[in-house]
Amino acid sequence: MYLPVKPDKVCVVQPAENQTIAELLERKSVRVFEPTPIPDDVKETILACGFAAPTAGNQMLYTILDIEDEQIKAQLADLCDDQPFIATAPWVLVFLADCRRWFDTYREAGDDPRTPGVGDLVLACEDALIAAQNMVVAAHSLGMGSCYIGDILENREKICELLTLDPWVFPATLLVFGYPTVQQTRRTKPPRFARQYIVMKDRYRRLSAEELRAMIEERGDQFDTFVPRFCARKYSSTFAQEMTRSVAEYLQQFAGLEKES
Amino acid sequence: MYLPVKPDKVCVVQPAENQTIAELLERKSVRVFEPTPIPDDVKETILACGFAAPTAGNQMLYTILDIEDEQIKAQLADLCDDQPFIATAPWVLVFLADCRRWFDTYREAGDDPRTPGVGDLVLACEDALIAAQNMVVAAHSLGMGSCYIGDILENREKICELLTLDPWVFPATLLVFGYPTVQQTRRTKPPRFARQYIVMKDRYRRLSAEELRAMIEERGDQFDTFVPRFCARKYSSTFAQEMTRSVAEYLQQFAGLEKES
Repeated sequence: MYLPVKPDKVCVVQPAENQTIAELLERKSVRVFEPTPIPDDVKETILACGFAAPTAGNQMLYTILDIEDEQIKAQLADLCDDQPFIATAPWVLVFLADCRRWFDTYREAGDDPRTPGVGDLVLACEDALIAAQNMVVAAHSLGMGSCYIGDILENREKICELLTLDPWVFPATLLVFGYPTVQQTRRTKPPRFARQYIVMKDRYRRLSAEELRAMIEERGDQFDTFVPRFCARKYSSTFAQEMTRSVAEYLQQFAGLEKES
Repeated sequence: MYLPVKPDKVCVVQPAENQTIAELLERKSVRVFEPTPIPDDVKETILACGFAAPTAGNQMLYTILDIEDEQIKAQLADLCDDQPFIATAPWVLVFLADCRRWFDTYREAGDDPRTPGVGDLVLACEDALIAAQNMVVAAHSLGMGSCYIGDILENREKICELLTLDPWVFPATLLVFGYPTVQQTRRTKPPRFARQYIVMKDRYRRLSAEELRAMIEERGDQFDTFVPRFCARKYSSTFAQEMTRSVAEYLQQFAGLEKES
């Protein structure tokens, strides 16, 4: 059930020995779901696993929007690089990095807290992603598929309006959940880069041209044909440029906010 | 082994029914480790679980620094808000959001890619955190403790120099791993906020004063005494202000970089 790139180097625990490890290794993204709804108690279990995740200072620096409104789901599908499966996914959650809740809490306690900065925002984003990944792992262990939608970072103006986001609240990621179709469960998990290109000892260094080529080729892609096509599709593409613009404006706006009176 | 805030509302799966869920719920941060070294095969298994995590476009937008140099560990302990247990932790990993590797890959393939933007940086940070959390979960399932050190965001100038970071590489988080002491395993996991303050339906809204008070009190803390002390310790503190400054400069520098010739 797990296809390691280099079995002798990458995976040393046999899946059967540890259920959790096996699940972490085998889990892959699912974008086609059965229409079966997810029972409420299963949702609550998955949420509880998110809440149980590590969180800076036990602060839970995130808010989760449970999107049930069909019109909002449809608009999200449109705004997130036109991915219709978001509109029909059985469970759609937006994870917000929330620098508002604690600010208001401090104010309510009579403090005069400093304006949140981008450092607070990054920490809150990280908190949100840690919780999100616990939920992805929990969902998989309960037979459920999931997919991250990074495109929630795009179209800032419309996303803010649609979800009535506070200026100190940032849409860190979107997750869709549902029971996978049979075809999806049979899909091969894409192989990852080998360890030697990802892990470095003590200090950062740029990879050499030879290493970059080997990294791509060893994964099974032909460097000179795959890379330019991938660049056009993932990096030079309209959605990637829109994401860059959108996030830059989020951060600019965030950094430029005046302290509220 | 799991202490839910409100057992009737939060946790519906009994731990014994699903090992993975039980582990996600019970896992707590560990800051005191036995001196026992971590066997290489265990490290490789944990890394493999990180690599297997969801990653945008299968890009693995991160680099992991395995810090073995004792002097670097000691300096990191100092620069990360003076936390000496980092220096003695058996395994110290810095997770870098890496916008350099793919840029160089595109260049090597003859492309003229756009300069990475803060949108690319945020996406890479998220990728790094998703992988990191898979490793935290894997480590726990193998009896190992871990702790996130968000303070790696501080002291930009010194961290960049110490780890020879590229301008398009950002230290997203630091994780320490090791076998927990008996006292650490007996520590009670801190209760989280109740679901109703974290999950909202369809749209964001600010919590009312009453809700903010109830959120804190229901977790077991007295609002008017706990909140001002927490604000002083976590938000108005020197380290929090340093984090805010440091990240702002990382982003400013990142956004202001000229395209390389």
